[in-house]
Amino acid sequence: MIARGRWLFGAVLTGACVVGPSAVPVAAQGAPADPAALREGVRAWRAAHQAEIVRELAGLVAIPNVATDSANIRRNAQALLAMLARRGVTARLLENPGAPPVVYGELASPGARRTIVIYAHYDGQPVDRSTWTGAPWTPVLRDGPRPLGRDLPLPAAGGTVGAEARLYGRSASDDKAPIVAVLAALDALRALHVPLSVNLKLFFEGEEEQGSPHVRALLERYADTLRADAWIFADGPAHQTGRPQVVFGVRGVQGLELTVYGAARTLHSGHYGNWAPNPAARLVELLGTMRDGEGFILIEGFYGDVFAPTPAEAAAIAAMPPVDSALRTELGLARTEASGAPLMGRIMLPALNIRGLESGRVGSAAANAIPTEARASIDFRLVPDQVPARLRALVEDHIRRQGWLIVREDPDAATRRAHDRIVKVVWDEGYPGVRTALDLPLSRAVVRTVEQALGEPPVVVPSSGGSLPMYHFGEVLRVPLVIVPIVNYDNNQHASNENLRIGNLWSGIDIFAGLLARLGTEWPAAVP
Amino acid sequence: MIARGRWLFGAVLTGACVVGPSAVPVAAQGAPADPAALREGVRAWRAAHQAEIVRELAGLVAIPNVATDSANIRRNAQALLAMLARRGVTARLLENPGAPPVVYGELASPGARRTIVIYAHYDGQPVDRSTWTGAPWTPVLRDGPRPLGRDLPLPAAGGTVGAEARLYGRSASDDKAPIVAVLAALDALRALHVPLSVNLKLFFEGEEEQGSPHVRALLERYADTLRADAWIFADGPAHQTGRPQVVFGVRGVQGLELTVYGAARTLHSGHYGNWAPNPAARLVELLGTMRDGEGFILIEGFYGDVFAPTPAEAAAIAAMPPVDSALRTELGLARTEASGAPLMGRIMLPALNIRGLESGRVGSAAANAIPTEARASIDFRLVPDQVPARLRALVEDHIRRQGWLIVREDPDAATRRAHDRIVKVVWDEGYPGVRTALDLPLSRAVVRTVEQALGEPPVVVPSSGGSLPMYHFGEVLRVPLVIVPIVNYDNNQHASNENLRIGNLWSGIDIFAGLLARLGTEWPAAVP
Repeated sequence: MIARGRWLFGAVLTGACVVGPSAVPVAAQGAPADPAALREGVRAWRAAHQAEIVRELAGLVAIPNVATDSANIRRNAQALLAMLARRGVTARLLENPGAPPVVYGELASPGARRTIVIYAHYDGQPVDRSTWTGAPWTPVLRDGPRPLGRDLPLPAAGGTVGAEARLYGRSASDDKAPIVAVLAALDALRALHVPLSVNLKLFFEGEEEQGSPHVRALLERYADTLRADAWIFADGPAHQTGRPQVVFGVRGVQGLELTVYGAARTLHSGHYGNWAPNPAARLVELLGTMRDGEGFILIEGFYGDVFAPTPAEAAAIAAMPPVDSALRTELGLARTEASGAPLMGRIMLPALNIRGLESGRVGSAAANAIPTEARASIDFRLVPDQVPARLRALVEDHIRRQGWLIVREDPDAATRRAHDRIVKVVWDEGYPGVRTALDLPLSRAVVRTVEQALGEPPVVVPSSGGSLPMYHFGEVLRVPLVIVPIVNYDNNQHASNENLRIGNLWSGIDIFAGLLARLGTEWPAAVP
Repeated sequence: MIARGRWLFGAVLTGACVVGPSAVPVAAQGAPADPAALREGVRAWRAAHQAEIVRELAGLVAIPNVATDSANIRRNAQALLAMLARRGVTARLLENPGAPPVVYGELASPGARRTIVIYAHYDGQPVDRSTWTGAPWTPVLRDGPRPLGRDLPLPAAGGTVGAEARLYGRSASDDKAPIVAVLAALDALRALHVPLSVNLKLFFEGEEEQGSPHVRALLERYADTLRADAWIFADGPAHQTGRPQVVFGVRGVQGLELTVYGAARTLHSGHYGNWAPNPAARLVELLGTMRDGEGFILIEGFYGDVFAPTPAEAAAIAAMPPVDSALRTELGLARTEASGAPLMGRIMLPALNIRGLESGRVGSAAANAIPTEARASIDFRLVPDQVPARLRALVEDHIRRQGWLIVREDPDAATRRAHDRIVKVVWDEGYPGVRTALDLPLSRAVVRTVEQALGEPPVVVPSSGGSLPMYHFGEVLRVPLVIVPIVNYDNNQHASNENLRIGNLWSGIDIFAGLLARLGTEWPAAVP
């Protein structure tokens, strides 16, 4: 089945700014004739500058970066401005009222006919300090992944760091490593006297982990500033095999907080148990109607906008290296959901994840009482064509069909007395997923350039399972986008003990140096 | 249907120590001829001693008393020894290795032929400080229940405290108020020169809120010391109408902690959602098989040992004042479980209460991640004839039938890889419920004596919904027991902001003074 609207960027590009083989020849753009020579040059440069690169990243990771922590988010932005200024990038903050600023930079390349924007975010997921080994924003270098390995000092000037070393800290991977990799790639190309094949714009967002509630307004305000031929998103992990990957889409995301109510005060479970409604039991009942044990979503109409992969997507999926068996072993899983269906197939579908449950207390803190409330936190992952507003309506219709009254604030006494099943439903700012067609000239050029930079082909992935606010970019800027992630897949992003495998920083530098030096050549623009 | 074994105390008594109308005459035991004169005398005495009584209670509430806090539990025990010594009660600690001590006291009454033990516990439920207004062990006197009212200073010597005032603090009600009421009753009778009609033993337990794991061994060790004709349990709340009540049974209790496992590490919900099993969703699925939305327990065989009320119980239930409608209004409930069946009917049945749920995080702390674990804490309430060991077997059989592997410790990697659904099942020390027959001479005498002490009949309740470790007393000591609770029903026991309505302390003194002065007369023993 063919989806309407999901090939947005493909459709836009075909008739707009993409040209075919009649483009200007490669030599006219000043890139080195030999990709292999460039690759060796970049590797030699970064091998000689390991200490300063790792130290720059550690310095950035040391600044707390939850988007709601305004003071520290501003400290991150100022640090990034200084890092850009040191590279001669024209940089400033793009402000949006009440939100963390975007750190924006420009670096023009004489003769380049393509302009690309590299996107990353500098904010990080909230932390649960009790589950971290050490402090989230005290970067620690280790000679291997926890719990193995031991602490290493940060390298002194001229020192080296092994590829298997790991830097621990919130956003070491997600997304501060890609930011540092892009800037190191600029340093490498400058040192090698290799000109950029594209005009470069940098866009570092500060509230992605909050769902980017303000990014659309910002894109609209700065649409002229942000004009480009393509956006490269430097977010997300490399493939589970350790191989680099190029990703052509993301799932959307929609957060949901549910609060279910019992009696107005906590009750003794003996004196009132099995008479007064138990909100935890009621929440269990409600959640049980939304998702089955195999991950299938039971909400009526939920799969109405879900379409099968295109032939190009199906071919790419078939060519991906198998990972499921190794992942099951690593993660201690005897079996996965949907009767063990492959991970990539599951990612092409939407998901309902229960990210939190809370009611009363468990373990030694448990009291023999009936809680007054029970809460569940859910994140939905959406595939293209699933519009969040429609999803929200489907979920609320479903909840009401189970006999619940939906409220937006804690109910007052009169509401409690009048309604048996009351649930507070609070949605966050969700956004839909997007996918870029695999057979666009841009898509093919990015894959080719990454292969040249690394000397091996990347894994081509039709969609990441994760989410980025790319939908806004497509709608507002009408620009194609491709994701070029660099960090290790086992980085614990979004969890405690987030970490970066240093070898991924090195290959990330190689990738961005290759893209900057060669994408304009591999994806030539028409002569004006 | 007639239950085997449940009328334990009735059966023991009928052939043992209870005698009929041929007992010795009242006058021989030295009690005042007129219950009304005694009642007035006690009231006048405690009206003149309000400040010292409330201050003694506040001093006791100020000592933290979670049973696992050994140092503070010992401080409570020492304080109680001193309070008993001041009354001339022969007191000591009954020690049990590794457990809080029992504070034990004896006060013989020349000529008394009955010996009763009054039971209370001095430990309290664990606290969640974040949910308390003020600190749990900083007693605060208020002129009314929170959130109404205002703080009052503790009264100066000779001062008064209104009946509607409340003392806030952990165990202000459960059970430190009854302890202070019994001791004040001794003071009142001594001041009035009224002899005790019974030999008195006091048994103050220090680990009831932990399920009394050591009480049975202690009863066996001190069986001779604790010999008596009856035990009066001073625990639990008065009736919801505010009227005093006499309670002839308790439900048993059995705690259960369930831990369900997902992947060995926290995973990004986008990259792995709907592929890696979600432990919260699996826990929801499991809990949904155990209990329906109306509170009906779905575990096969669970109701096999549940029997209908006896005719005397049914008559007592029918005579109880109606409370359901007022409770629904007060608690903000539009409807209660089991299609609105009456509270007392529900208490005659077993219950499954979910007292806690925990997985990942909710609200602003929620991260888009798949938790590694999900936990539920459950307390079962059992009626007589439901044996905990059999309940545990039924529940585990049920869990296994749902396809789960039950483990007792966190599973290792090999176990995780080999089994799809793994649940850690940890039981606490549960105990069964008991009921004493309503038509025993002791049962009738207690009701009559309480009525004399108050000038109005108490509510007669076949069973409390709550639990006390009374089963051990019955099995080890072969003694009948009756519960005479005094504290306000809306005391928030087991929750935050536990409080005592001061008027209940006053009537509690009246009740215990009446029992001590008259029970030996109303329930005469055979002449030896």
